[in-house]
Amino acid sequence: MLHEVAGRAMAAHVVDTVSRSGVDAVALVVGRDGEKVAEACALPGVALETYEQRERLGTAHAVLAARPALERGYDDVIVTYGDTPLVTGETLATARAALEAGDDVVVIGFETDEPTGYGRLLTRDGALYAIREEKDASDEERKVTLCNSGLMAFNGRRALELLDAIGNGNAKGEYYLTDIVEAALAKGGRAGVVMADADEVLGCNNRAELAELERIWQARRRRELMLDGVTMIAPETVFLCHDTVIGRDCLIEPNVFFGPGVEIADNVTIHAYSHIEGAKVAAGSKVGPFARLRPGAVLHEDAKVGNFCEVKNGDIGVGAKVNHLTYIGDASVGARANIGAGTITCNYDGVNKFRTEIGADSFIGSNSSLVAPVRIGNHAYVGSGSVVTRDVPDNALALARGRQENKEGRAEMLRARSLAIKAARKKDGGK
Amino acid sequence: MLHEVAGRAMAAHVVDTVSRSGVDAVALVVGRDGEKVAEACALPGVALETYEQRERLGTAHAVLAARPALERGYDDVIVTYGDTPLVTGETLATARAALEAGDDVVVIGFETDEPTGYGRLLTRDGALYAIREEKDASDEERKVTLCNSGLMAFNGRRALELLDAIGNGNAKGEYYLTDIVEAALAKGGRAGVVMADADEVLGCNNRAELAELERIWQARRRRELMLDGVTMIAPETVFLCHDTVIGRDCLIEPNVFFGPGVEIADNVTIHAYSHIEGAKVAAGSKVGPFARLRPGAVLHEDAKVGNFCEVKNGDIGVGAKVNHLTYIGDASVGARANIGAGTITCNYDGVNKFRTEIGADSFIGSNSSLVAPVRIGNHAYVGSGSVVTRDVPDNALALARGRQENKEGRAEMLRARSLAIKAARKKDGGK
Amino acid sequence: MLHEVAGRAMAAHVVDTVSRSGVDAVALVVGRDGEKVAEACALPGVALETYEQRERLGTAHAVLAARPALERGYDDVIVTYGDTPLVTGETLATARAALEAGDDVVVIGFETDEPTGYGRLLTRDGALYAIREEKDASDEERKVTLCNSGLMAFNGRRALELLDAIGNGNAKGEYYLTDIVEAALAKGGRAGVVMADADEVLGCNNRAELAELERIWQARRRRELMLDGVTMIAPETVFLCHDTVIGRDCLIEPNVFFGPGVEIADNVTIHAYSHIEGAKVAAGSKVGPFARLRPGAVLHEDAKVGNFCEVKNGDIGVGAKVNHLTYIGDASVGARANIGAGTITCNYDGVNKFRTEIGADSFIGSNSSLVAPVRIGNHAYVGSGSVVTRDVPDNALALARGRQENKEGRAEMLRARSLAIKAARKKDGGK
Repeated sequence: MLHEVAGRAMAAHVVDTVSRSGVDAVALVVGRDGEKVAEACALPGVALETYEQRERLGTAHAVLAARPALERGYDDVIVTYGDTPLVTGETLATARAALEAGDDVVVIGFETDEPTGYGRLLTRDGALYAIREEKDASDEERKVTLCNSGLMAFNGRRALELLDAIGNGNAKGEYYLTDIVEAALAKGGRAGVVMADADEVLGCNNRAELAELERIWQARRRRELMLDGVTMIAPETVFLCHDTVIGRDCLIEPNVFFGPGVEIADNVTIHAYSHIEGAKVAAGSKVGPFARLRPGAVLHEDAKVGNFCEVKNGDIGVGAKVNHLTYIGDASVGARANIGAGTITCNYDGVNKFRTEIGADSFIGSNSSLVAPVRIGNHAYVGSGSVVTRDVPDNALALARGRQENKEGRAEMLRARSLAIKAARKKDGGK
Repeated sequence: MLHEVAGRAMAAHVVDTVSRSGVDAVALVVGRDGEKVAEACALPGVALETYEQRERLGTAHAVLAARPALERGYDDVIVTYGDTPLVTGETLATARAALEAGDDVVVIGFETDEPTGYGRLLTRDGALYAIREEKDASDEERKVTLCNSGLMAFNGRRALELLDAIGNGNAKGEYYLTDIVEAALAKGGRAGVVMADADEVLGCNNRAELAELERIWQARRRRELMLDGVTMIAPETVFLCHDTVIGRDCLIEPNVFFGPGVEIADNVTIHAYSHIEGAKVAAGSKVGPFARLRPGAVLHEDAKVGNFCEVKNGDIGVGAKVNHLTYIGDASVGARANIGAGTITCNYDGVNKFRTEIGADSFIGSNSSLVAPVRIGNHAYVGSGSVVTRDVPDNALALARGRQENKEGRAEMLRARSLAIKAARKKDGGK
Repeated sequence: MLHEVAGRAMAAHVVDTVSRSGVDAVALVVGRDGEKVAEACALPGVALETYEQRERLGTAHAVLAARPALERGYDDVIVTYGDTPLVTGETLATARAALEAGDDVVVIGFETDEPTGYGRLLTRDGALYAIREEKDASDEERKVTLCNSGLMAFNGRRALELLDAIGNGNAKGEYYLTDIVEAALAKGGRAGVVMADADEVLGCNNRAELAELERIWQARRRRELMLDGVTMIAPETVFLCHDTVIGRDCLIEPNVFFGPGVEIADNVTIHAYSHIEGAKVAAGSKVGPFARLRPGAVLHEDAKVGNFCEVKNGDIGVGAKVNHLTYIGDASVGARANIGAGTITCNYDGVNKFRTEIGADSFIGSNSSLVAPVRIGNHAYVGSGSVVTRDVPDNALALARGRQENKEGRAEMLRARSLAIKAARKKDGGK
């Protein structure tokens, strides 16, 4: 349940979907490591109650662990699983509608060409009369391709009565939720089936299946974004996070990775091979190729962060350019500033982090090192290759580099020396 | 029509395919924003006439907007659509062959398992006797899986006569091109069907479908290149542009992106994560991984541009090496030169761009900044970390950096100071 | 046979699979360029005999080129092909089991929906009675979808007798291995079929098929790793080499490329866009995004190599950090050292490579150049932007950079000069 799909625990996906579908309460039934699960599922705005199932006595027993919630007598009760993260709100809504139309129990089913191993949903005139486990099924019943997903919904006013009617008179002595169908029918109730897409009810038993869940989630979300006006040249190479926001008329080139906490405004271009997390990118900006935006990166309108550049906890001002081989960390770059290739903000001294402020309309020459804390003034100019350790006033030119000396003919001598070393190494059999 | 597939407007793909299939003239029927479409479709060597359809009175009306072209009486007339970019020249040739064999009207059809919504092509003894719209089809006719793509071809000598015979006696009062079949049969003519692959006639109604067109285009082109002798380890991760040229026995590793204007000679290796546009790469060269070649990059024979390197408007000479973390912009690198890691050509002063010339057999030490305009001589040697602002003669050694000073024990003091700052910050509750 | 799948010649895959399935000897039948093939197939611990087939007189003739091996009278003989690299050991084991159960000849077959072109395996009561080539098949036989893969196994004690019984009385005058079924039956022997997955017996006739073999190999191997406890968010974007080792509970983000010779310990995170070859990564380490590890890179426990960093022939000590835009070549980085952004080890002087040693707990300021051979002491501190050419003692601070000079108001003058140049250029019509 804690393994992640799209950067969020599977269980949290379920809580999110359930809570978005308009329920009043979410009860989480957990095992011993329930704290971690509850923590992972703590979504903003969702009232979550956690119930511990102390013994593992079957699925009905698990649901009854939330008895206090059930006793409150909601209109309806939906049972989902923490490792079935792809169920959609539409399917849950359909199940609730069936309850409203008079069913006491609704089982969410799916069609499959390979039903072996699944419980079969046996229906007559649209009504469900049994969930038949593989081992108990007749040859005829085994041909049924309508299968039980395990997800169910109950009439809230009858839920406790029906759950309490489930017995454990079976080989393992467990209380099976599937027996609720029989219980409902025995009490003159009605059971029905609501169909889900087979993808929706996929569970997860190993990491290959986890990757499959991720694949389906990504395909769904990419499609939503494209239909909302995002252009992707190769959607299958764009990896989104559960909370990724991308505006209209953005172009996302192939191979872009979004970590958590990203907001991209309209009309932004993200070039290939960009890795973005915890960043806000304003309209008209361009990112990449080969750019990395880390948490706290904020690009203002029409900013540009180009190849082999990294921005962490840094503001890039309106129209500013950080085009090549640059590290901007704990810094602000003023509007229209131009940061030369190879510029590094030296924000860390091994113990503390300090800030760099780069003024508007300033020009930072290539290969400069800006040693924080330091401020480069507006309209200031830093010469290439400078190591700036003191503030540079507005409009000032800062140079901080050695003077050039040309030594005529010395290249030849150097080379001769190197060749001699090489020869000596060879003689030594060294390298 | 203007959305791009493989870096070229969909409509331009159609114009290109049509013009390559040996037609004498291409007439483009456009709506109000026709100028942009005409501009996007202006391919070298293609004589394009543009006709504006002022009112939108149906597909036949659209074709008749090109009446002056039709009046010229060509042998045959092909009707294609600007958002159907994947139709192949082979299919168009087959349609023309059917006209030559005596058909007056040829409809390009396709087979699909899900025909709902498409017009069905009704045939008898190989001849087409009707295009039946979904809503007018009988239950029997709805089972037909041979569908109308919308693409057609006509006998050029009868085209005008047949088009003019199409009426608008229908609910919308429009002139439908599909009625040309009836018109032809009514005049004793013959109609036939030519099959296209379903992929060929896919149109585009949203960005998800645009991505699907791109996917198909890419798969096709990759396959062509592989059959022409290009090795791709993971073709599905290589993104080609409409004009990408790659020679024989090249190896393209996974995740390579080609923008427009790229020519790769034979025996070139493009390592993973390379982003290449507007560049020429000569035989024996190696690019990447993590390399970016931008417009105007020219790699001569056996050149090497390695990881985290960017070349823009720059020549890399025969056997020269630009291996790590380097920006070469507006520059030429001589044959066999070795450019050290972290070298930056400082080509921009905030206003102008200047050129850097690096001589043959020269050696540029790591982390150097070459401030343009500047020339490094042949066989010259630039010491690591130099900021070169003046020309370096042939064979000379240039040093332009500070002298090293070691301050014994001072590291400890620095660290103590940093720790004190940290403690003070903590006390302030600041960071 | 020499084209590579997963970084290894196809033929070597076959030799590897065969040798792992417990055979006593591997006989390689080669053509004229046999030396290269034998070299590519020389796997450690595999005794390989090479036989040259001088004339190309058919598949049975090829097998008989290894007559000396056959004469040794092994229990069984398996015939595989150098361009069928995906056959599994399980299938070979099943074939050998069938021999043990009494078959004299076992043909490895596969099911396909599109059998056209393949020889059909005709069976009666589970026994194989003929391999029928397409051209000789009756209409009824052509409907058979059980096809001949070409791979076979023989009772080793009868192999020579049966192979020698094959004649060349056919149109091409060649000796066909498929005739061994008839030969066996004629001598009162028994033939059987063992099924392989269609993927296993795919051959390779062009580079598109080579890419398909690679695709299947990768999918298989990724799945194995996931089931062994490796998490991959998007397995289809992770490219493995034949010898890639990845430990449990590793997380591999999308778009990671493994070249040959990689060993990743447990609990390692490889972030997106990493390119790794010939490297060892110890437990708890983090790599990437955008990292390149080249041959000889060794990351010790909890080391970190981050974005736009390259490590070649270098040790990164326990807990050391190489986070941004750095080149570490021919170097060792001590435990807990912090290498600032943009640091370059200048290991090459154009002729020789030298080593850099960076002490434990040292701090290398950003944008530094360490000119090898050089040693930075333990607990030493190198100031940002320094060019270090001499050893730095333990605990010392090294500074090697120019002093900063701020020239008030000069930025304005510079800009004015640049604008004047721009104006002059414009006047000249230059650029």
